[in-house]
Amino acid sequence: MKSIYLALGSEIDPEKYLICKFYFESQLSDEEAAESIAAESSIGTWTDVQTMKEEIKNRLAAKVFKLEKNIMHIAYPLEMFEISVPQLLADIAGNIFGIKFVDNLRLLEVKFPSKYIKSFKGPRFGIEGVRKLLKIKERPLVGTIIKPKIGLSADEHARVAYEAWVGGCDFVKDDENLTNQGFNPFKERVEKTLKSLDKAETKTGEKKNYAPNISAPYSEMIERAQFVKDNGGKCIMIDILTCGFSALQSIGEENFGMVIHGHRTMHGAITRNEKHGIHMNVLAQLSRFCGIDQLHIGTIVGKMSGDKEEVLKNVEACIYKCGLKSAFPVCSGGLYAGHIPPLMEILGKNIIIQAGGGVHGHTKGTSAGATSMRQAVDAVMDGIPIEEFIKTHEELRLALKKWKR
Amino acid sequence: MKSIYLALGSEIDPEKYLICKFYFESQLSDEEAAESIAAESSIGTWTDVQTMKEEIKNRLAAKVFKLEKNIMHIAYPLEMFEISVPQLLADIAGNIFGIKFVDNLRLLEVKFPSKYIKSFKGPRFGIEGVRKLLKIKERPLVGTIIKPKIGLSADEHARVAYEAWVGGCDFVKDDENLTNQGFNPFKERVEKTLKSLDKAETKTGEKKNYAPNISAPYSEMIERAQFVKDNGGKCIMIDILTCGFSALQSIGEENFGMVIHGHRTMHGAITRNEKHGIHMNVLAQLSRFCGIDQLHIGTIVGKMSGDKEEVLKNVEACIYKCGLKSAFPVCSGGLYAGHIPPLMEILGKNIIIQAGGGVHGHTKGTSAGATSMRQAVDAVMDGIPIEEFIKTHEELRLALKKWKR
Repeated sequence: MKSIYLALGSEIDPEKYLICKFYFESQLSDEEAAESIAAESSIGTWTDVQTMKEEIKNRLAAKVFKLEKNIMHIAYPLEMFEISVPQLLADIAGNIFGIKFVDNLRLLEVKFPSKYIKSFKGPRFGIEGVRKLLKIKERPLVGTIIKPKIGLSADEHARVAYEAWVGGCDFVKDDENLTNQGFNPFKERVEKTLKSLDKAETKTGEKKNYAPNISAPYSEMIERAQFVKDNGGKCIMIDILTCGFSALQSIGEENFGMVIHGHRTMHGAITRNEKHGIHMNVLAQLSRFCGIDQLHIGTIVGKMSGDKEEVLKNVEACIYKCGLKSAFPVCSGGLYAGHIPPLMEILGKNIIIQAGGGVHGHTKGTSAGATSMRQAVDAVMDGIPIEEFIKTHEELRLALKKWKR
Repeated sequence: MKSIYLALGSEIDPEKYLICKFYFESQLSDEEAAESIAAESSIGTWTDVQTMKEEIKNRLAAKVFKLEKNIMHIAYPLEMFEISVPQLLADIAGNIFGIKFVDNLRLLEVKFPSKYIKSFKGPRFGIEGVRKLLKIKERPLVGTIIKPKIGLSADEHARVAYEAWVGGCDFVKDDENLTNQGFNPFKERVEKTLKSLDKAETKTGEKKNYAPNISAPYSEMIERAQFVKDNGGKCIMIDILTCGFSALQSIGEENFGMVIHGHRTMHGAITRNEKHGIHMNVLAQLSRFCGIDQLHIGTIVGKMSGDKEEVLKNVEACIYKCGLKSAFPVCSGGLYAGHIPPLMEILGKNIIIQAGGGVHGHTKGTSAGATSMRQAVDAVMDGIPIEEFIKTHEELRLALKKWKR
């Protein structure tokens, strides 16, 4: 009996099917493994059922159309999908990770029909909108995360943010695990830090942005977003994975008219293993569909895993032409000024470069750390070798002195 | 210099600290790896920062208090945490999965201070509430998932549900990837299937329940929950991981007065690898905190991965005494009537046993499949060996004939 799930060598119309590429390892034959994955992720189960109909098989069965050593390509009929990331994931990234006879399974790539993508709202600002807001035409944006991650009071938080902005940061954000704890209540922090922002804008003549971390149960998160907006904020931050896509898509649809910054904490539990789970580029695409304007995509050179090939795929997911605005790729994690030249060489100018320890750990403090970051950007933009530039730029020289290996 | 993150051999007060057990593999020494994980998951980063204060170190640093070969135990001060699952995960299951020099990391167990647990709402029904609703005192509940997973019309869905209830199922649910697609619109399905439910209750004299899958962007999900309630429904289903914990905790707090059934599709991407990610028992606890009344926890014997030891840990997470109601453990995935005796032997009577293919794949159809499930439960409850019972119970005999290996 020919399987309804196998259509090796078939032509697939990319406007009628969602196309997924999986890595897999199985105790079954390649064809059996492919069939069980295509079945479980579309209309099938482990046995035949009396309630199945020919018409359903013809219309909705997923088709394995290419099968190589440990790689399968599956086409899913567009009709299967709602315009809902939770629903989408339940198909192409759901039960299939648990099938007993498939030892490893990794969703490597997804290609979406353009009309499916365009049904999502996508980023409201995107790279261009964020650049316009901050009046920065060409250079990378420079940001910091307030450190220590948790423990500062709201007053201290606002003061450190001020120093970072005045030193040269365009952007300040809360860390992923700072939300509304007793030592630093959300509302007090937002009010005080936004006042710092106003002062820093006046002082520097530059536009600045601040992303308070609103991550919380959804109803609370919405109230926090509204509070930021009511206090003149222009940005909110969400931990996209610990919050989840139901909340993320909904808050994007709500459209508070603020930039949404997406931190990807917990992604490593899903994306890290090279043989299992989901590649970050897929999660990046889905975050962009939901409306994330700025997204953490790895650093290549910092404290976190993720090599050049992986990070470039994540960047591509943020910016490829698809009818939605681009999401601004954010490099964050273990960075300092000295990482900026190699990062810009690999990723170009359309990135946000964030340093936490690399700003607040500067021997002369936060403001000098921020200055060192801007100096490194200036050096690259002006085409001046960093070793030359530090002769006249003390903050950058001290940053390299402390951290260069 | 003694690290602030290492406190090996210290006594930890379980009411003041959240205690996590991790498996890890690292290129660093055990102590260096433990230190970097404790730092990144509490107050630290990759370098010292000028903004750190002694008082923060003393109050908020996580402490590694036990370190064995590849296993570390970390105590996190309760003050770090908001009553928010997204915030909690950003601490204990966040960036640490991505640290470059830690190759594998798995969160195996979490012990929470009882006052932290009690700050969550937890299940509104729990095992007792669900039993009371269905007037079933002691035996396991029997459920089915409508199959094929997707493709039936709303009319067909309602008809198959009716057959399952009349055949003997207590509970019918949508599958994880059926939400509101064109071939089976949500509202039409809910209206028609709830009418089937009323008819089936009248016909059988038994109480029945139906869990429509409301998974969607949050605002839409809330509307769907309200629609179910307005139509007399007593249960909703959520794909807990594709939706995420921000949505889950919020909908639990909304309290629609309906049973919440949690499907764990996508969990395998996070829980499957034995060396990396998060053990399902942790996700089960968090789902219970959020208010999940019925939760998929594995099958031991079915189509999905998960051995006895793992599933028993998941069950324990659902039922351990902690001041919240118990969540009803659900076995679902590749089951049929013949699996019921061994499942009940291992897990007892406080389980919901679901079969999709094992009901609708029965040679005599859905109703007979449902009957075979109830017969298997009856056989165990009456202490009659299944080989004996099938002599007088045709549906069960046919089920074993088709599937017994």
